Amino acid sequence: MLTREQQFMAQERARSYLARAGIVLTPRESQDIEVADFGLGELATTGLELVVYVNTERVCAKELVMFPRQTCPEHRHPPIDDEPGKEETFRCRWGLVSLYVEGEPTAHPVARPPVGHEQTYTVWHEIVLHPGEQHTIAPNTLHWFQAGDVGAVISEFSTRSRDECDIFTDAHIRRAPLLQETSPSEHSDA
Amino acid sequence: MLTREQQFMAQERARSYLARAGIVLTPRESQDIEVADFGLGELATTGLELVVYVNTERVCAKELVMFPRQTCPEHRHPPIDDEPGKEETFRCRWGLVSLYVEGEPTAHPVARPPVGHEQTYTVWHEIVLHPGEQHTIAPNTLHWFQAGDVGAVISEFSTRSRDECDIFTDAHIRRAPLLQETSPSEHSDA
Repeated sequence: MLTREQQFMAQERARSYLARAGIVLTPRESQDIEVADFGLGELATTGLELVVYVNTERVCAKELVMFPRQTCPEHRHPPIDDEPGKEETFRCRWGLVSLYVEGEPTAHPVARPPVGHEQTYTVWHEIVLHPGEQHTIAPNTLHWFQAGDVGAVISEFSTRSRDECDIFTDAHIRRAPLLQETSPSEHSDA
Repeated sequence: MLTREQQFMAQERARSYLARAGIVLTPRESQDIEVADFGLGELATTGLELVVYVNTERVCAKELVMFPRQTCPEHRHPPIDDEPGKEETFRCRWGLVSLYVEGEPTAHPVARPPVGHEQTYTVWHEIVLHPGEQHTIAPNTLHWFQAGDVGAVISEFSTRSRDECDIFTDAHIRRAPLLQETSPSEHSDA
């Protein structure tokens, strides 16, 4: 669970990464940056900051911000009703991101899974994306990704996004963000 | 019809606009920038420069470059087979673009259609996009757009792109680019 303070700090930091990548947001988008800790309460290692530009029944586009070595944990997008799962293309805009997908495991991967969660990372075919490079993930296939030492800004182009339907390898993960409400006494401390 | 020289010059110019917008391309993407004159041979007024990042059966993402006052002519994306037409979101990244869609005509629009083609511009509901602003076009609805005085860089997020199926109000338009082949004698002049 995230505190309001943690959320605020992460939003502020994400804004500085987006600015470095030359990406302009509206004031509303800037204020509403989503901070996802996947319910693990370890945002520095497992987390993602997101700006959703559009998400209709057919198309979704987002910017993803990742702090240095922050990891989006392993998951897949299953078929829903008569539609195949979400198809997504990640395009690195700034920094560096290592993407792991199903396939031949890479002998010496650059990423390390968050400590204590190693067993929930099972696919190890590595694709390293520098700015301008991209990769498309087929529906319903496992993947995870981690930013390099300076962090990353990544554009995601995809079919409709239904985060609540994602299936994570780590059963403890909750994709919907839970925010800890600040009590009046905490306010008076500020 | 475009000459190779015109294509080369437009690509070079488009690269400088993308760089100003902070957008990084791979060397291959940079080399392959598409220059569309819509068959009118008046690229400075009717034209578009494009980088297609991805175009699968379900999702498409592009960057569009427009030189100052360059216009993408009026068209719509019709239904094909059992699919509704292409749905597209335009997000201004740099410069300014005025978008015209079906609806109440704007009294004093900022754009002027290319001279001699005025009668092929029939929708006049104006939406002006500054950097960070975006608009989604419903399938099968008429639209056209023109860059402001400094030009524009625009991200397009959409369903599958099938340019060859677009229906233009101007019956003279050919979306597929025709390139004039350079003859050996022209080469020796260079």
